[in-house]
Amino acid sequence: MAPKTALVILSGGAEEMETVITVDVLRRGGIEVTLAGLTGKAPVTCSRKIVIEPEVALSDVATKLYDVVVLPGGLQGSEALATSPEVGKILHTHYEKQSIVAAICAAPKALKTHSIAPGCLVTSHPCVKDLLIDAGYKYTEEKVAVSGKVVTSRGPGTTFDFALKLVELLVGPEKVKEVVGPMMWSHET
Amino acid sequence: MAPKTALVILSGGAEEMETVITVDVLRRGGIEVTLAGLTGKAPVTCSRKIVIEPEVALSDVATKLYDVVVLPGGLQGSEALATSPEVGKILHTHYEKQSIVAAICAAPKALKTHSIAPGCLVTSHPCVKDLLIDAGYKYTEEKVAVSGKVVTSRGPGTTFDFALKLVELLVGPEKVKEVVGPMMWSHET
Repeated sequence: MAPKTALVILSGGAEEMETVITVDVLRRGGIEVTLAGLTGKAPVTCSRKIVIEPEVALSDVATKLYDVVVLPGGLQGSEALATSPEVGKILHTHYEKQSIVAAICAAPKALKTHSIAPGCLVTSHPCVKDLLIDAGYKYTEEKVAVSGKVVTSRGPGTTFDFALKLVELLVGPEKVKEVVGPMMWSHET
Repeated sequence: MAPKTALVILSGGAEEMETVITVDVLRRGGIEVTLAGLTGKAPVTCSRKIVIEPEVALSDVATKLYDVVVLPGGLQGSEALATSPEVGKILHTHYEKQSIVAAICAAPKALKTHSIAPGCLVTSHPCVKDLLIDAGYKYTEEKVAVSGKVVTSRGPGTTFDFALKLVELLVGPEKVKEVVGPMMWSHET
């Protein structure tokens, strides 16, 4: 079986823990991850000043179809994702083709601005909770919310849970068990 | 009071989650972090292929004194740290001047090869447990071990605990409380 594929979109001011934990855990789970720079291939300065190099420019992969599209959070990074027409188009294509659309921290805001799955159950960082509720989303404070093909989570401290849930949904619970041991992750997921 | 300072040493094959969570959480804790490349300022490819840019070359800051020196894990990265005479010298200087020496995952191996605090209580990734015990270290399977000025931890899944312990030791427990909320970290630390 061909490996599952993930597109993680990296924008300036992204939360680097959310970006790196997601990419790393998905790769440990056997998923082929593409880390794409929203504005190109130039190095990206994240929210706490760590500089990460994207592997491709988003524009170079914008017509490809992945099994999941992931939006990391970080206030400034989320704002860029929420206002990018290119990101909106990618989210709509993937949502319509039954791929998973996943967002963490402040990034669920992009679901609202791009009108993805209005009314579905989401969670997020508390800083965008009201905005999502006002837009008609149902809201939970669980670490990870799964609503059909929309997966959301809350912040850096829930990113392991978020990424492991994506591995579970794409590859299966057995792979999650295989991955958590060597990572020394011992929390309930 | 001047902010506390940390040196995090980044080498090829480092575990990117351990590197990034540590730097990010320490910065959230108000600690001035320098991310130094072991072999220079060139971008570093980590264990799961994420490319991170060091802020300085280690050789440019090798004579400075920090409040903590942190060694991230990752098998290949740890090996480089464990065999680098420059790292050995930095660890010895900091240990003798009563700074904290901290290592996670496979990186506690570098404590052994550079003869730092032989016999003290440590933890590590299980893959280097026997090596540490054979060298005379006392061993615990706690998520974080604090033994005098030596702080060790086990892997990516214990890095939040590790970094928050460093914030507690350097800045205080009140700062830990302040930091965990916005990160949405809700585990016992």
